[in-house]
Amino acid sequence: MKFYIQKERLIKSVQDVMKAVASRTTIPILVGIKIDATEEGVAFTGSDSDISIKSFIPKEEDDLEIVDIVETGSIVLQARFFGEIVKKLPEAIVEIVVEDQFKTIIRSGNAEFVIHGLDAEEYPRLPQIEEEKSYTMPTDLLKTLIKQTVFAVSTSETRPILTGVNWTFANNELTAVATDSHRLALKKAPLQSNIENNSVYNIVIPGKSLNELTKVLEDSNEPIQFVVTENQILFKAKNLLFFSRLLEGKYPDTSKLVPTESNTDVKLNSKDFLQAVDRASLLAREGKNNVIKFSTLEAGTIEISSYTPEIGKVVEKVKSLAMDGEEIKISFSAKYMMDALRAIDGTEVTIYFTGAMRPFIIKSNVDESILQLLLPVRTF
Amino acid sequence: MKFYIQKERLIKSVQDVMKAVASRTTIPILVGIKIDATEEGVAFTGSDSDISIKSFIPKEEDDLEIVDIVETGSIVLQARFFGEIVKKLPEAIVEIVVEDQFKTIIRSGNAEFVIHGLDAEEYPRLPQIEEEKSYTMPTDLLKTLIKQTVFAVSTSETRPILTGVNWTFANNELTAVATDSHRLALKKAPLQSNIENNSVYNIVIPGKSLNELTKVLEDSNEPIQFVVTENQILFKAKNLLFFSRLLEGKYPDTSKLVPTESNTDVKLNSKDFLQAVDRASLLAREGKNNVIKFSTLEAGTIEISSYTPEIGKVVEKVKSLAMDGEEIKISFSAKYMMDALRAIDGTEVTIYFTGAMRPFIIKSNVDESILQLLLPVRTF
Repeated sequence: MKFYIQKERLIKSVQDVMKAVASRTTIPILVGIKIDATEEGVAFTGSDSDISIKSFIPKEEDDLEIVDIVETGSIVLQARFFGEIVKKLPEAIVEIVVEDQFKTIIRSGNAEFVIHGLDAEEYPRLPQIEEEKSYTMPTDLLKTLIKQTVFAVSTSETRPILTGVNWTFANNELTAVATDSHRLALKKAPLQSNIENNSVYNIVIPGKSLNELTKVLEDSNEPIQFVVTENQILFKAKNLLFFSRLLEGKYPDTSKLVPTESNTDVKLNSKDFLQAVDRASLLAREGKNNVIKFSTLEAGTIEISSYTPEIGKVVEKVKSLAMDGEEIKISFSAKYMMDALRAIDGTEVTIYFTGAMRPFIIKSNVDESILQLLLPVRTF
Repeated sequence: MKFYIQKERLIKSVQDVMKAVASRTTIPILVGIKIDATEEGVAFTGSDSDISIKSFIPKEEDDLEIVDIVETGSIVLQARFFGEIVKKLPEAIVEIVVEDQFKTIIRSGNAEFVIHGLDAEEYPRLPQIEEEKSYTMPTDLLKTLIKQTVFAVSTSETRPILTGVNWTFANNELTAVATDSHRLALKKAPLQSNIENNSVYNIVIPGKSLNELTKVLEDSNEPIQFVVTENQILFKAKNLLFFSRLLEGKYPDTSKLVPTESNTDVKLNSKDFLQAVDRASLLAREGKNNVIKFSTLEAGTIEISSYTPEIGKVVEKVKSLAMDGEEIKISFSAKYMMDALRAIDGTEVTIYFTGAMRPFIIKSNVDESILQLLLPVRTF
């Protein structure tokens, strides 16, 4: 194997696939990045066996030569060293040559690294995915959908299925739901599909995979394709493949959790309310649960407060934009409320309460596609 | 105590004095920040008993009112909460009131915090310092002097005196020396003094104190005054006092360590050499000692290399700008060389070697006031 490559493109591809490389692994060769030089260009692959990322650099792009392939071939190089080496190379062009015994030379300007490679034949193959169920969506919409839901997954392994985000495909619409059983985030988005409208599919994608995916996807409204199989999902962007395994098991039916009517509706300026909750949480954080109190007062005002015996208390009045229905006093996690408000991207939100002991929902006033639900905490 | 204060000034002062507040302390009241409201303004004090910082906010500055003192008094507030609260207050003006039992109210806009304060009478007094030996220097020169030496202090407590920087005052010149016994950094700077020229004083300031000092000092060429006593040094900038204890004990005589002649002089482009050393260190880092080899070749070229059996090797040739004297092969710590090159602020450096087993020095070609010394490592 021997090729010359533009350093900046090499750095970008290596950084992308590094996101799939685990520092510790039970499969030793997965500490490496696989490099495949073919007549078409060079592909880099990283994997921790849950997530696999393949980044391709074509020989030419827009009539400019990016890679000069002298001899095709494959090698696996230790990801950590390879990643650091490429970042620090002196010149804009890098030469990579594999000699006998997987000995690999990386040359740029007057700098020459000779490192021990590993046999590419031993690197696991990427999942073979047939493009049976295939969907597309603009990349930035997919990133938004992920960011508005993934934060609500459970971080505890007691119910592993809740560490994933539930994606339901139906009627050319994707519904993503995440819950850790204390709060729930839901986002809907339209999509294009190659399959019949009336088929419903339901998968659970590990939250970690989705977090890594948002890091490697460009911000663009170019369509991204995803292909679903029984135990894998593959995202296909330009020159990038991202594979994730799916979680096994049945995701709980969350549709009945979401109340359909409310007794108290409070419309608020999202930013003012978020900052008031943030201030109230300063003292509440000390107690483990980070719980604050929310009470409606007269004249459309609400009061947010928290009290920690050792430290003190904080009280703040916030003017609502509109208030309807019964008075309410309710307590909830300040952190979960802030997460929910940050996920709802909008200047105004309405909170719909049905009672101090009942889950309540927070919605944008302009965007029907997102819903956040919180469970109250018993304190009053 | 009751006053109104501009939030931005309050935040800045609290952040400055926070740098002296330790998260753990054997003197419980030192987890707090002391606030003193007088007719002249408000002072904030933080201390971990090694370092004490006092930041003063005057009532007026440039004819603008910054503080409105309604009632003078003092209180101590838990630094961590107070620091977070002031940063998140909603309005530009903050009211602070102490009521009965040290109960303290912090009010801004509609937000009101009520926190338990502590008795300011129990807060330790700052050292009383008589301005016997007093020096001044431009603030930015002092910051440069600190940054060019403090990185070389020892981080090990086996010889506590080496965790400090040795400052010698003589003939209106300050000489700062730091060494961890593997390398040494030396910087000289002129200063003004109120004492006789022929007196020599010698102190050792903890490296940690100097690091914190550079963080709170503004970048400016305004003079900063410092006052030295037997066991304390006080730095006086505008509205800021910074106290540090001095280290006890005798600092080793380092003057004999520095070779006065050399057998091989190599002049290099500082940036090119630094980057080559950085690349060579990538593989060397894996072995604990981070040692690289430096060899002179023919035709004014040097070779930098490192070899780690499990990973591979790196070799790089660097063209010197000039080379004089005998050939040399020498090994040294890549990290220490990079620290030294970064401290010498200049485009060209000369390395003066006296032999493969002898300490060698690195100097700027334009700035005589700084010298870096490294001990070689035996490998050839």
